[in-house]
Amino acid sequence: MRGTGCKTVSVFMIAVGLIVLSTPWVLAAGASQEMFTANNTWMLVATFLVFIMHLGFATLESGLCRAKNTNNILFKNTAIVAIGLLTYVLCGFNFMYPGDFNGWIGFAGIGLSLPAGDAGLIGYADGAYSYYTDFIFQAMFAATAATIVSGAVAERVRLGSFLIFSALYVAIVYPIVGSWKWGGGWLDKMGFYDFAGSTLVHSVGGWAALAGVMLLGPRLGKFVDGKVKPILPHNMPLATIGVFLLWLGWFGFNGGSVLSADPGLVSLVFVTTSLAAAAGIMGAMVCSWMVQSKPDLSMILNGSLAGLVGITAGADTVSITASIIIGLVSGVVVVFSVIFFDKLRLDDPVGALSVHLVCGIWGTLAVGIFSTNPEHKLWVQALGVVAYGVACFAAAFLFFFILKATLGIRVSEQEEREGLDLHEHGVAAYNGFQINAQ
Amino acid sequence: MRGTGCKTVSVFMIAVGLIVLSTPWVLAAGASQEMFTANNTWMLVATFLVFIMHLGFATLESGLCRAKNTNNILFKNTAIVAIGLLTYVLCGFNFMYPGDFNGWIGFAGIGLSLPAGDAGLIGYADGAYSYYTDFIFQAMFAATAATIVSGAVAERVRLGSFLIFSALYVAIVYPIVGSWKWGGGWLDKMGFYDFAGSTLVHSVGGWAALAGVMLLGPRLGKFVDGKVKPILPHNMPLATIGVFLLWLGWFGFNGGSVLSADPGLVSLVFVTTSLAAAAGIMGAMVCSWMVQSKPDLSMILNGSLAGLVGITAGADTVSITASIIIGLVSGVVVVFSVIFFDKLRLDDPVGALSVHLVCGIWGTLAVGIFSTNPEHKLWVQALGVVAYGVACFAAAFLFFFILKATLGIRVSEQEEREGLDLHEHGVAAYNGFQINAQ
Amino acid sequence: MRGTGCKTVSVFMIAVGLIVLSTPWVLAAGASQEMFTANNTWMLVATFLVFIMHLGFATLESGLCRAKNTNNILFKNTAIVAIGLLTYVLCGFNFMYPGDFNGWIGFAGIGLSLPAGDAGLIGYADGAYSYYTDFIFQAMFAATAATIVSGAVAERVRLGSFLIFSALYVAIVYPIVGSWKWGGGWLDKMGFYDFAGSTLVHSVGGWAALAGVMLLGPRLGKFVDGKVKPILPHNMPLATIGVFLLWLGWFGFNGGSVLSADPGLVSLVFVTTSLAAAAGIMGAMVCSWMVQSKPDLSMILNGSLAGLVGITAGADTVSITASIIIGLVSGVVVVFSVIFFDKLRLDDPVGALSVHLVCGIWGTLAVGIFSTNPEHKLWVQALGVVAYGVACFAAAFLFFFILKATLGIRVSEQEEREGLDLHEHGVAAYNGFQINAQ
Repeated sequence: MRGTGCKTVSVFMIAVGLIVLSTPWVLAAGASQEMFTANNTWMLVATFLVFIMHLGFATLESGLCRAKNTNNILFKNTAIVAIGLLTYVLCGFNFMYPGDFNGWIGFAGIGLSLPAGDAGLIGYADGAYSYYTDFIFQAMFAATAATIVSGAVAERVRLGSFLIFSALYVAIVYPIVGSWKWGGGWLDKMGFYDFAGSTLVHSVGGWAALAGVMLLGPRLGKFVDGKVKPILPHNMPLATIGVFLLWLGWFGFNGGSVLSADPGLVSLVFVTTSLAAAAGIMGAMVCSWMVQSKPDLSMILNGSLAGLVGITAGADTVSITASIIIGLVSGVVVVFSVIFFDKLRLDDPVGALSVHLVCGIWGTLAVGIFSTNPEHKLWVQALGVVAYGVACFAAAFLFFFILKATLGIRVSEQEEREGLDLHEHGVAAYNGFQINAQ
Repeated sequence: MRGTGCKTVSVFMIAVGLIVLSTPWVLAAGASQEMFTANNTWMLVATFLVFIMHLGFATLESGLCRAKNTNNILFKNTAIVAIGLLTYVLCGFNFMYPGDFNGWIGFAGIGLSLPAGDAGLIGYADGAYSYYTDFIFQAMFAATAATIVSGAVAERVRLGSFLIFSALYVAIVYPIVGSWKWGGGWLDKMGFYDFAGSTLVHSVGGWAALAGVMLLGPRLGKFVDGKVKPILPHNMPLATIGVFLLWLGWFGFNGGSVLSADPGLVSLVFVTTSLAAAAGIMGAMVCSWMVQSKPDLSMILNGSLAGLVGITAGADTVSITASIIIGLVSGVVVVFSVIFFDKLRLDDPVGALSVHLVCGIWGTLAVGIFSTNPEHKLWVQALGVVAYGVACFAAAFLFFFILKATLGIRVSEQEEREGLDLHEHGVAAYNGFQINAQ
Repeated sequence: MRGTGCKTVSVFMIAVGLIVLSTPWVLAAGASQEMFTANNTWMLVATFLVFIMHLGFATLESGLCRAKNTNNILFKNTAIVAIGLLTYVLCGFNFMYPGDFNGWIGFAGIGLSLPAGDAGLIGYADGAYSYYTDFIFQAMFAATAATIVSGAVAERVRLGSFLIFSALYVAIVYPIVGSWKWGGGWLDKMGFYDFAGSTLVHSVGGWAALAGVMLLGPRLGKFVDGKVKPILPHNMPLATIGVFLLWLGWFGFNGGSVLSADPGLVSLVFVTTSLAAAAGIMGAMVCSWMVQSKPDLSMILNGSLAGLVGITAGADTVSITASIIIGLVSGVVVVFSVIFFDKLRLDDPVGALSVHLVCGIWGTLAVGIFSTNPEHKLWVQALGVVAYGVACFAAAFLFFFILKATLGIRVSEQEEREGLDLHEHGVAAYNGFQINAQ
């Protein structure tokens, strides 16, 4: 239907056309108002997709833990979203994108300040999105790092201390180290590449999780007489809902990181992201079936997340085949990594270290191996991994250490045995159901 | 990549350009076919986001009630979507948007009638959306009001009577009072402002909930010997899923109420909506932690919804700081409001009165306080609150009263004790689980 | 605001206009870069909506089955997504869209190969979507057919055999029979119409489900002494989540099948799809209330899916009124169909045969009855139904038959009684809850 008028040319049309041409959008360099609107709409869609990842984390973490700690986990994950958004308004956004700075740390001031007129709209990012879209898309990312920590320290961390840790980590550490790359800092200038945050989000969360797990110690009953005793998840449908919602959110996490609705790039990212997740499932399925001789649902769920974390650093810059390889390797790695952390007596109830830290590192290095862009170099990728590891682990260790020495970071033994729900919140998550001690 | 051809000018290009200009979209005043497509796509995205709120209501309400009434609640919430959509086709849409009318009540006829040609497409709303998009976006809103009632009367209302009430309320009351503002009626002409429905949707539902709660009386065992006995929610993960889905849906509820994909306004609305929800969580968290000395998950969940309801009337017309204040106040108000309704012996299982009615009123008044538009006046906002309160409470009271006198609105005591699932539906929602009497 | 510059005409503007006109997008016949971006963005939104249907299937199926088989069901549904995506890369996409072929079977080669330059972008589908978008949208559809089978054979099928069946069916049968219509094959040339897959997806899955159900036999305890003994669903909130997520996904399933963001068509499809689902609920509600004398939640959930399957073949080509009729009929049909299959001793735990096969057939025939396009003929629609029935049932029967004769397709009686979770996966889905034998 559209375009049939192409054949009609008339002088009247020419006149109309010239009037249309004189509308303001013609003046925008490189982007029309229409393109701006399409781009900005996609970025807002990506924003709500990243938002729903918080529900994914909440359901995955609570599903993989025990019924008696469910309210506590849901509380943490709900509060973190609020903490993340509010600290990002206060200072996070302006720590992360300080403008012209020394490359290590900069701060553009407290709060938001909409640039006047077109400078906050079509002129803000060359017609790709508005100032407020930039803020809210980035803000939705911010709380993710703290949520990753939440899973690793679940079932034994003290609520108040965890919330304080999260606030500090999200308000200060996440945005400052983020500025090194996405704010145009020193690693960006060296050519380090991390498309959507295998390192900047997932490893940043993973390193803090490692510090937390080390300082907290394992849950009671996890390692008994030198043996690993599995603590069973209480609700696998809930965990599965979590994984699918995380995958759904990843379409915005990676797809939005194109920072426009560019059809070629966003569709490529959808393909690499989906195939890496699928290959992660396949890798974890085959591997766990062989190693454990039973097909393990929690392993393939983690396999899909492993593939997603793995592809995140290079989703826009690797081939289709490479995306499948990255995902497959992630799925295999996550199975052995879970076993490995158990051997190290590092108790991580949801496998966050394996998924987010280990596969975050793998994904970042994979850019150096598989990128179609010759400017992406393996040694720079490795340097980035080390730099983030040192900075994030040190900062998180310091925060947790101070909290441990002051408020305490671990609940009492009685509280842990009877459940955090009853002790910290005074009410169980499931009422009416017969719940057995576990 | 795009735009590199800018430097190439040739006579051939001019000719091609003129041909392109002669396509039909050039004729649309103010909007190109591209802008129309981008706008309309966003409105359809907003539509499916509002749709998913119905799942949010269903899971929140069932999670906060007892296991033995779960099927009943899910049935109500599923049926309401059908009732809402079908009555909106039949008459709701044309009651709500009657065109030129007396400002109090008008009706444009039964069913849908697509305006011919461009009048139903690019010409329908100045290139913002098509006729069918208008209908379906508004239709998704319609059932919301009845769903709010559902939560407040849960665990004791008779299914058939409730469905009849819902059908009448959604088909007649919701659209007629809605026409006073959104249909261009008398309150609109007075300058009353309600961006996305703090009053028109949430309070409209809330007033009916109040009437229902008053006529039904409290659940058995809620108020015993002058004391409030808490009736515990059966499934908090389900309730949490509900709240996050409602928040997700609110991006469409508020974001779609811009009625175009306008990048500046939609992104502003995303920011104010998110921050109000976050501040609502924070307000409810601090307040409930202080008042109840335990951090309460159900309170922060309601706090986020309170913030969302509170910001809904002014999401496009208040500053970022104001949105945080509105959310914070909502979060504090909801905690005290829940306690207050318990004191009044008004039994509201899910806190719908506090969230939707009280914060709906607060949000509407907040426009008069915080709006950046000087034409929004507090007294007009207050007038609107009163007008909707009188009309909706009276209508809902009348409907419930007649139903009570005829069919009856409350299940038998035995039915209430043993659960509505077994009596009204003949089957439990959870089979195989050991469920304790509660 | 936008468009105010329309009144300003100047020679300078004309010059700018001519430069703009000379950018590459002018060269695309019929679509500007802006339109391409808006279209492609919508197709990617539709893609993630179809993706979330897989979570809908997983939760619906597990909710309607027993607690002891939950891990098994979630495993199957997660693995199928991976299998579907990976086989679609490998061969499915190129079996389904082989280009110029004999109309029955063709193959365009292994893997993806992005056409160079604009041929894979704006030139790929006349500005409607890119090559990668085409692939990923279609890939998300592919696994759906196998997932439909999953529900029908649940609670007794052997995991390994089912995964092998799914891989074969999705990799070979689904795309080859799909090519008959969507690939431009012989049925397409005859004028057969199936907008979004009442037949090509839902019946294709349904026929395979029928073959599986016949060869597997009913679950133990379903038919005892000539009587049907209902096996109760273990978690109705989970099933309800599934249905709402499926409906949500259908906005992409049908809305994306417009294959562009065309405002008129996509908004029409949103309306017909929603109203058919609503009417399906209403039809099933009234019918089941009358027939069973109790309002049945699982029936109205299936009623909404029945309406959605029914409208899928003609969502863009029937009137609003017709969409309501199609949905109503679907809702009534699904109730009697469930009873009918029970009478035939065909045990289908989730009602997949009634929803996907029977209503898929009804929807396909309904195009011949209600289409506004006179070229859609009832006999051709019926021919299509028969052709797909013969081909799919035969292929699926053959696959299942060979698997039955070799690996076996049914678990042992002990395994079925004690649950597939413990035997095939070694761990229960719910731990800590007291689960009764059922």
